Amino acid sequence: MDISRNYGLDFEQLIDKSNEYYNSEKIAFINKKPTPIKILSVSGNRISDAVFEKKSTTDYNGIYKGHHIDFEVKSTIKSTFDISSNLHQHQMEHMENIFNSGGISFIIICFKMENKIFLIPFENLKQISVSHINIEKCSNLGFEIKESLNPSIDFISIVDKIIEEQYGKQ
Amino acid sequence: MDISRNYGLDFEQLIDKSNEYYNSEKIAFINKKPTPIKILSVSGNRISDAVFEKKSTTDYNGIYKGHHIDFEVKSTIKSTFDISSNLHQHQMEHMENIFNSGGISFIIICFKMENKIFLIPFENLKQISVSHINIEKCSNLGFEIKESLNPSIDFISIVDKIIEEQYGKQ
Repeated sequence: MDISRNYGLDFEQLIDKSNEYYNSEKIAFINKKPTPIKILSVSGNRISDAVFEKKSTTDYNGIYKGHHIDFEVKSTIKSTFDISSNLHQHQMEHMENIFNSGGISFIIICFKMENKIFLIPFENLKQISVSHINIEKCSNLGFEIKESLNPSIDFISIVDKIIEEQYGKQ
Repeated sequence: MDISRNYGLDFEQLIDKSNEYYNSEKIAFINKKPTPIKILSVSGNRISDAVFEKKSTTDYNGIYKGHHIDFEVKSTIKSTFDISSNLHQHQMEHMENIFNSGGISFIIICFKMENKIFLIPFENLKQISVSHINIEKCSNLGFEIKESLNPSIDFISIVDKIIEEQYGKQ
């Protein structure tokens, strides 16, 4: 297992904890999607052979103030984030479908070395022509999320801004 | 594999096909959730040992006219449907969370022998005190879905009625 994958898991755990907080406080109801797996062989109630499905969608979805929320979480130890190597075409299509159906779709990127976290709405992400985006570019495309105490990654406060921009104050 | 499970798979395939139709026609964007699995051992890119997670949520979720949709699909060869043996407590809690967050949550039940299909909104399901419900009771609690050509199980037409009842005509 490479170091960047470990970093990724750490960051996802912070998102999981934040979702637990949102769920327990009845603020938002967001769940991690299970990893899609193709089961090849079962013996008893045990899966003895399976492979990861290539066509996964995104990491999380759920509901907030009646809005459908769907997002992908990424982290990097580099100073730029490479969209094309981190987001597959079918994931972009999935996010486009969510957006076109009236949902709120975005990615959350954590730059581990700089300790900076950004939420970028899909509609901004799809408009850019370069693949590598640095912190400055992320800041222009989306919103910085400052780490807080509880929840540690308060991305819902940013989703509020997106809803306000799209639907007016609710 | 018992016969009722085979029947269940058949019916889920009809729902999958209907979702494919909705997705391709850009009517609704609904996906089957992957089965939650706990991976115990991986060799190479192959999963060599895993177990099914007990706490699954529901079968499908997605978005329609901006509304968050979440539902469970069941089928039976019996003349009554037993809620308590078919829906776990954590699934009921999941559906309650969806409903309380402003989403649309329901179950679709197929009575294979009678060739009758019903959609029952969660808010109606949770109010009943008996566990076994027959076709007549389902008809009172929810809406019958008549099989059609394409999509074969047009449950979105019923979701329209639920939206109209809850939010007025859209």
